[in-house]
Amino acid sequence: MIVEVIAVGTELLLGQTVNTNAAQIGSRLADAGLEHQYSTVVGDDHDRMVAAIRLALSRADALVITGGVGPTQDDITREAICSATQRELLFSEEYADRLRRWWAARGREMPDSNLKQAQYPAGADLLDNPKGTAPAIQLEHEGKLIFALPGVPAELEILLDQHVLPVLQDRSGEGVVLSRVIRTYGQSESLVAEILADVFERSGNPSMAFLASSGEIKIRLTAHAPTEEEAEALVAPFEAAVRERMGSLVFGIDDETIENIVLGLARNNEWTVATAESATGGMVASRITAVPGASKVFRGAIVAYHEDVKRMSLGVADALIEEHGVVSEPVAIAMADGAARALEADVAIAVTGSAGPETLEQAAGTMVIAVHTPERTMARTVRLPGDRERVRTYTTTGALHLARLAMTGEWWSGKPRSGRWV
Amino acid sequence: MIVEVIAVGTELLLGQTVNTNAAQIGSRLADAGLEHQYSTVVGDDHDRMVAAIRLALSRADALVITGGVGPTQDDITREAICSATQRELLFSEEYADRLRRWWAARGREMPDSNLKQAQYPAGADLLDNPKGTAPAIQLEHEGKLIFALPGVPAELEILLDQHVLPVLQDRSGEGVVLSRVIRTYGQSESLVAEILADVFERSGNPSMAFLASSGEIKIRLTAHAPTEEEAEALVAPFEAAVRERMGSLVFGIDDETIENIVLGLARNNEWTVATAESATGGMVASRITAVPGASKVFRGAIVAYHEDVKRMSLGVADALIEEHGVVSEPVAIAMADGAARALEADVAIAVTGSAGPETLEQAAGTMVIAVHTPERTMARTVRLPGDRERVRTYTTTGALHLARLAMTGEWWSGKPRSGRWV
Repeated sequence: MIVEVIAVGTELLLGQTVNTNAAQIGSRLADAGLEHQYSTVVGDDHDRMVAAIRLALSRADALVITGGVGPTQDDITREAICSATQRELLFSEEYADRLRRWWAARGREMPDSNLKQAQYPAGADLLDNPKGTAPAIQLEHEGKLIFALPGVPAELEILLDQHVLPVLQDRSGEGVVLSRVIRTYGQSESLVAEILADVFERSGNPSMAFLASSGEIKIRLTAHAPTEEEAEALVAPFEAAVRERMGSLVFGIDDETIENIVLGLARNNEWTVATAESATGGMVASRITAVPGASKVFRGAIVAYHEDVKRMSLGVADALIEEHGVVSEPVAIAMADGAARALEADVAIAVTGSAGPETLEQAAGTMVIAVHTPERTMARTVRLPGDRERVRTYTTTGALHLARLAMTGEWWSGKPRSGRWV
Repeated sequence: MIVEVIAVGTELLLGQTVNTNAAQIGSRLADAGLEHQYSTVVGDDHDRMVAAIRLALSRADALVITGGVGPTQDDITREAICSATQRELLFSEEYADRLRRWWAARGREMPDSNLKQAQYPAGADLLDNPKGTAPAIQLEHEGKLIFALPGVPAELEILLDQHVLPVLQDRSGEGVVLSRVIRTYGQSESLVAEILADVFERSGNPSMAFLASSGEIKIRLTAHAPTEEEAEALVAPFEAAVRERMGSLVFGIDDETIENIVLGLARNNEWTVATAESATGGMVASRITAVPGASKVFRGAIVAYHEDVKRMSLGVADALIEEHGVVSEPVAIAMADGAARALEADVAIAVTGSAGPETLEQAAGTMVIAVHTPERTMARTVRLPGDRERVRTYTTTGALHLARLAMTGEWWSGKPRSGRWV
């Protein structure tokens, strides 16, 4: 079954909102083994929405539309579906009552504009939205399914899981698509592709693709088969070949993030973790604490943005800063040791640097990362191109990867080191 | 001139990468006054890429394609352009030499796969990429312009600015599109729409749209006119009407983020700022330090994830934690006061709470924010729905808004308070 996605909203075309919904839907469709060939963004324009809906119906079996079902005047997805399928727009008294009760339960009177959400194309079902007032719409038109869902990510997500995907999977009765992502760090995309050139040559089902993302290179294998087991059997030898070639550059698969790996290493070693951050301003700590269960391992962080704080809270000696400068390996090492001491942690990750565009004594993009472990503390300096946000993001990723290599001892074990950071 | 955007990459359809490039291109096209009606994502599939390119050429004057121009085997945008326009794929010896020199300058030998990047459709120009090895391609086909750009965001950005937009603007010779976003915080989207219903009724040019984003509600006005001045004159009365109705709920316009506003207030008052964070794990500090120049004002942060750190680094009394629990207003106030003291800051923002799914004594989603200013320290408790990431993001936004209201004194000045947080 081929599913097409249309995201509605001029704010998406104007770039004021990033279309995270398309990624959300795409990943759920893939998990459900449903094929997804095109994803389109169209503005809040009636005629263009109608054209996009008609085109999608001509080339797919089902259509998921997000956005434009809210209570405001620019929400015209309902009208566009009616025009595209030549149906009347009806009004559900029953849903209107439900809306009034929803507002009453929250002790507020419903703004009249919300009644717009009780409108629906003739023949459609209104699906209850557990997280908001905009209902989802499900319509069967000439043998094809049309879903219209709210654009609010949390509402979209629950409606997809509870209504849309079960209905689509039930209809499709097809096989599965299995996607395995092998995550590596430490080499350029083109060198990874070269290392794997003959594996790529042999690929087909599974297909193979390379993807650079915030300094990591991902290798994606995607197999189609009648069952999960058969798809897994297709992927397995390719995964083994990739792992054999890439060796210790592989750090995880699928949604295993580097922060998950670092927390797992800490748990296995019964170590606690802390960070001391200057240029990354708490981004390393944010990434670690985004993982549920981080509280078992993570002690906390000291964001020492001002030099005084490096001295006061981390105990970095004045003389060290004067001699080497704030952006230096000795200062990064003192920050890591200081954080381990002040926050009573076994492992401490420290970052100092200049993310730009302001410059200290060093050029913008010069970043120093140090990692303290019970065994030793080591530091590395790197120069990163790009703007402030890119430098901060890449450094955050790099700091977590260095923490992994320090915690496993690979940093100083004499193993082959082909990465950029070690 | 109508420009259409096609992003190429199966990883986008599978949701493994969010299509931030489309937002980047969209916002630049809007700034340049170029119309943008559709944005499409298509996988690394030759036939579907050809279909998408042909469709775009049938309805737009120019086409910007991103992705699929790298060195790896799944990069087939060049081939797809050739098929869609029935042109031959040629090889540029000159660009191949340039690639070899690029690698040599970095002391490395070029992997052979990179030569793929010296291929181009007959009639196209290869444009130099200052940030990478994949060149941009510019092709005129039957009076329409086709650009193929790398998908790496930093490379895309510079090529857009240096090559693509100047060429498109020169060609268009049309008027401008002016977009003004008025940013508000503290009310629901439907109530904002209701407050502004009659302003919306009068809109047209400029058009008016509402947009909910991480707890903020944005109101976007978009005007078309021959000149910047005329567009501004169309927008001005609508902006004034929105500001008058929304009053103190308006906190900024366009790309004025709440972190920018907070840093501006600090600079104007000659105050320094710090944060003390538990559940947000450094996200408030990350948002603040993402702003260039934050170092003039921001002292640092203590991420007190473990209870011990709240005691040790922030001086929160044991008795307070025992009596009220970690997630409580007295503890949040002690954290804010403790951060102001420990980090020698005039203003301190503190967050404690349970983002879920782990639960402390309080239900997940219960968050307490306190703000210390030279005048006083106050706290608020809020219960937020959604998953860990949503709770953390909304709390970070809320904490910055509460900091703004504390720094201006609006929190306790007796002014009308219609927001959710105060």
